[in-house]
Amino acid sequence: MKRLRLKLAYDGTDFCGWQLQPGVRTVQGELEKAISRITGTPVRVHGSGRTDSGVHALDQNAHVDIPDNRSEVPWLRALNAILPEDVAVTEACYAADSFHSRYGALEKTYTYTLWLNRQFVIPQRRRYVWPCGDVDLERMDRAAEYFLGEHDFAAFQNTGTPVSDTVRTVLEFSRRQGATPYECVYSIRGTGFLKQMVRNMIGCLVEIGRGKAEPHFVRSILEGKDRKKAPATAPPQGLYLFAVAYGEGDCGSDQAGRDQSGKNGRE
Amino acid sequence: MKRLRLKLAYDGTDFCGWQLQPGVRTVQGELEKAISRITGTPVRVHGSGRTDSGVHALDQNAHVDIPDNRSEVPWLRALNAILPEDVAVTEACYAADSFHSRYGALEKTYTYTLWLNRQFVIPQRRRYVWPCGDVDLERMDRAAEYFLGEHDFAAFQNTGTPVSDTVRTVLEFSRRQGATPYECVYSIRGTGFLKQMVRNMIGCLVEIGRGKAEPHFVRSILEGKDRKKAPATAPPQGLYLFAVAYGEGDCGSDQAGRDQSGKNGRE
Repeated sequence: MKRLRLKLAYDGTDFCGWQLQPGVRTVQGELEKAISRITGTPVRVHGSGRTDSGVHALDQNAHVDIPDNRSEVPWLRALNAILPEDVAVTEACYAADSFHSRYGALEKTYTYTLWLNRQFVIPQRRRYVWPCGDVDLERMDRAAEYFLGEHDFAAFQNTGTPVSDTVRTVLEFSRRQGATPYECVYSIRGTGFLKQMVRNMIGCLVEIGRGKAEPHFVRSILEGKDRKKAPATAPPQGLYLFAVAYGEGDCGSDQAGRDQSGKNGRE
Repeated sequence: MKRLRLKLAYDGTDFCGWQLQPGVRTVQGELEKAISRITGTPVRVHGSGRTDSGVHALDQNAHVDIPDNRSEVPWLRALNAILPEDVAVTEACYAADSFHSRYGALEKTYTYTLWLNRQFVIPQRRRYVWPCGDVDLERMDRAAEYFLGEHDFAAFQNTGTPVSDTVRTVLEFSRRQGATPYECVYSIRGTGFLKQMVRNMIGCLVEIGRGKAEPHFVRSILEGKDRKKAPATAPPQGLYLFAVAYGEGDCGSDQAGRDQSGKNGRE
């Protein structure tokens, strides 16, 4: 067996999330189906983590073990030819057997995009933003600082995935303007995230931005550790899994299979 | 009657273009239907010009005459509440009776986005780019210069809309990087454009970028005035109607109807 490492981008709109579930369309499901068509055997794809229904990815990471007799398949081209158009493989390379897309992930970065005009959403952006109405961004900046560092994020975890430990470290929580003047993009980087933690943090920030709570409300919610006291979860479509960092480097141009041309890694 | 001026954004993917046609879904058709629901009478919407099936707009401009007894309708909010989600009104204001969205247009700007990675298209961008393969952008820059200024663009006009005069002036033909590293956005500004002229110019540039012709090929095609000698039309989904300039200013925050709050023109 050879361990194939994949980097993926997907539009989450029409997927019931990442994780394989019987009877529904998931990213993991589509990937396993596509890879199995090539290997002729069942395969199991391991992702860096789940994404919820409607959540997008620009850099999901995964690995899968494929039979040695398929090691010369030009994976990047072959998979993109088979996969549906809302998921794409952006890099494919062979990795050491010790590489693990989930356990090897050191940091993840998510982005969340707010849409700040109440009167309309530009149609091309409607699948990728949360039209949250009028908010005070400076106030939200002050609130976001309370998330930085190591905290028990129990109050920002939705139920469904039991974990032994709810302490996580947020390394960055920044804001920039997005692709249009109405878009505000938060970038949230951390060593790990609980279920719907980013969407819960954003939901809390927007509540503060609407003037319904003070910035230091974040601290009291963190300290209270009670999900029921925290504001509602932000909707999924504003969220992107933006990057996953590993100890080793990225695939780069070292693509798996036989169709490298050397010319910028393209065909 | 009062003349209502509208600025519109739409995702052209699921429209059969701008212009009303029986039996198919068009932007003009959806707009007239929405406005008629409010006025209770048939209305005729006039656009700054047509866009083809699959072509997008960030700033299409239009006008429509509405009965005086509907002058206090909060048009921006009311229309966005009715319109399907792939078309949005971004501004609505009353204009002088002399305002005409088509005849008053002094300049138009289109953008066209190329996708420069052969191996994949990021799914979120697939509706908005042309994956044209490997091209030499500097070579295309040299070719684009031949389009600048006043020329007879007969060779860059597709049939279907007879015009008396095929001389047009291109004021700008520039290139910049787009929202992702794989996107190259051309901005083309001119006093007027023939049918599919932008897509024909882009199709010609890409042919040159692929090395199939020299940059000065543009000049010989212009001089030959023969559409059949020119390269194929670029596909519609990369094209955006980006802006239309008029002698008078934009609507700005002077919104038609009664629901202005004064607070950034939002509710």
